[in-house]
Amino acid sequence: KLIALLPGDGIGQEIVPQGRKVLEVVASRLGLELEFEEGLIGGAAIDAAGTPLPEATLDLCRRSTAILLGAVGGPKWDNLPVHLRPEAGALLPLRKQLGLYANLRPAFLFAPLAKASPLKPELIEGLDLLAVRELTGGLYFGEKKTFRREDGQETAIDTLVYTEGEIERIVRLAFELARKRRRKVTSVDKANVLESSRLWRRVAERVAQDYPDVTLEHMYVDNCAMQLVRWPKQFDVIVTENMFGDILTDQASVLAGSIGMLPSASLGGEVALYEPSHGSAPDIAGQDKANPLATILSVALMLKFSLDCEEGAKAIEQAVAEVLAEGYRTADLWEEGAKLVGCRAMGDLV
Amino acid sequence: KLIALLPGDGIGQEIVPQGRKVLEVVASRLGLELEFEEGLIGGAAIDAAGTPLPEATLDLCRRSTAILLGAVGGPKWDNLPVHLRPEAGALLPLRKQLGLYANLRPAFLFAPLAKASPLKPELIEGLDLLAVRELTGGLYFGEKKTFRREDGQETAIDTLVYTEGEIERIVRLAFELARKRRRKVTSVDKANVLESSRLWRRVAERVAQDYPDVTLEHMYVDNCAMQLVRWPKQFDVIVTENMFGDILTDQASVLAGSIGMLPSASLGGEVALYEPSHGSAPDIAGQDKANPLATILSVALMLKFSLDCEEGAKAIEQAVAEVLAEGYRTADLWEEGAKLVGCRAMGDLV
Ligand SMILES: CC(C)[C@H](C(=O)O)[C@@H](O)C(=O)O
Ligand SMILES: CC(C)[C@H](C(=O)O)[C@@H](O)C(=O)O
Repeated sequence: KLIALLPGDGIGQEIVPQGRKVLEVVASRLGLELEFEEGLIGGAAIDAAGTPLPEATLDLCRRSTAILLGAVGGPKWDNLPVHLRPEAGALLPLRKQLGLYANLRPAFLFAPLAKASPLKPELIEGLDLLAVRELTGGLYFGEKKTFRREDGQETAIDTLVYTEGEIERIVRLAFELARKRRRKVTSVDKANVLESSRLWRRVAERVAQDYPDVTLEHMYVDNCAMQLVRWPKQFDVIVTENMFGDILTDQASVLAGSIGMLPSASLGGEVALYEPSHGSAPDIAGQDKANPLATILSVALMLKFSLDCEEGAKAIEQAVAEVLAEGYRTADLWEEGAKLVGCRAMGDLV
Repeated sequence: KLIALLPGDGIGQEIVPQGRKVLEVVASRLGLELEFEEGLIGGAAIDAAGTPLPEATLDLCRRSTAILLGAVGGPKWDNLPVHLRPEAGALLPLRKQLGLYANLRPAFLFAPLAKASPLKPELIEGLDLLAVRELTGGLYFGEKKTFRREDGQETAIDTLVYTEGEIERIVRLAFELARKRRRKVTSVDKANVLESSRLWRRVAERVAQDYPDVTLEHMYVDNCAMQLVRWPKQFDVIVTENMFGDILTDQASVLAGSIGMLPSASLGGEVALYEPSHGSAPDIAGQDKANPLATILSVALMLKFSLDCEEGAKAIEQAVAEVLAEGYRTADLWEEGAKLVGCRAMGDLV
């Protein structure tokens, strides 16, 4: 099976090799036959090939079973026209073209990291929630334009569109995932203001009828942002539209100590994409300081969802827990008394 | 000067009288001549007059110098068509018709409440930020519709629209307010995805040129949601569009211990509106359990922004700080060893 490696920009170049290393060990121990091929994406692709998402990369992705992405973007490319930048020019079209409509972002706490969380320990000990974000609809992909109104005012429009079908497939996935967890789905919307949220709520109600064993609760997005800080352990599976999901998953990620810990999986098409929840962190790139654990845990998700190897996924999660319990920390997690290690060393330890 | 009192629904009926009581004391001590008149709004108005925002209420508001609103909404009216409900039928049109484009929501910590915050004390001691939310544009007031596409799919659309002028006036206000504070403005957007955010950013840059003494920083909304939990003290003034502001201000409010502590002011028209940041809390309504401090602190904002009485505002803030320091708490703030008081008693104490 072919695994596409897309390191991208900044620390992406450092963390993807650590993910590959761990995956190779697991594959050889459990007898998985994997091949690896690297592709260019983001700023690295702009510099080498003049475009953030070369055809060759898309083609590689389509031929693969799964993709491991590092991160894209950096100040170097921020002055390009937006559709040529690493984010809007590569990441968004990649998601859309591969049909990756479901972005899974777990937020869980490894017990030894309780001190690194901004929340009081009693609020986060045992935290284990899964956010399911719609990834190919909403404001991200609706019609957009900027124009001058008759009165001379510059005016900009973005459009938030959802169809029944787009909502149904993501909500259904959330219910399926909840069945394997604590059987509770929180659907987040702003139905007191948005038409799209009212449609969302109706479809969620309809889907819920097929899952009588799972509890559905609706929550307004503003309240959810509040509850995530106040009492995050109330959540099991959160499902929401693209923009709300972008905001809430970043917020949730910091609860777990560091965004450097959290993996993600984007599913829905023939091939699935795995990447850390964090970005390219240009400020620490090239210094062997990055935390590779989010990438390594993304590999665990890959084993689970794309390689049908739950055993390998468990082994990785176990190994990460042990390394943390032994007191090893990258700089983002540093605390008094810990053993500070770099990106490569952390990968080796796992 | 005429003050309109709109208690509305749920605990609104209990907290507005506490706000009035405190305002009357301040007025008589400082020689302000105030008259009060009550109006119907929200569910209370639906029940009494068949409409959530009666003409008489709008008229009262227009004749007033300032409005003190309690809260609107509750399960009793949740099954009405959306434009007849307390929120979309009263609160949103009231904001729009009175031209209240600027919603100010401070988030600050009274030192004795550090224990009530979900964040670790060192992260919030001394917290004092001011969120400035655009309140009459964006997804809230853009065109909306639900229809069946040719392929039979139900489809819903909301539109996010901003003009230069709408952005400029709110950003300018944020800069003016920052001048009286720590001289830093964080403009929050999603310029890597939205056209409206790119226009927002350009206008913010342009306005900033008139305020060389104030620092402007841009932050993506997902990152801001993360930073508000990670290190909220980095912020002075946050300015953002309507929907992002809705989410981020609710999130920020919980940092201060309880949303029951935080006031808000909506400015921009001839008359200004003051209300607590929290809602109508139907679950505790009528039990004298509500925290009236957000309403009382909203009265302080009224004294400052509408009644030109900074002295009265300071006196109220001081009184609240003292009552908290003496250990009095409403149920939402309760902690071991505190003196539990009801809504009315808390109002009397202040
Ligand atoms: C880079 C940006 C376009 C992207 C998004 O908003 O989806 C990122 O924030 C993410 O969450 O993966
Ligand atoms: C009730 C609702 C429409 C309102 C809003 O979203 O503006 C509320 O959440 C607020 O923030 O005042």
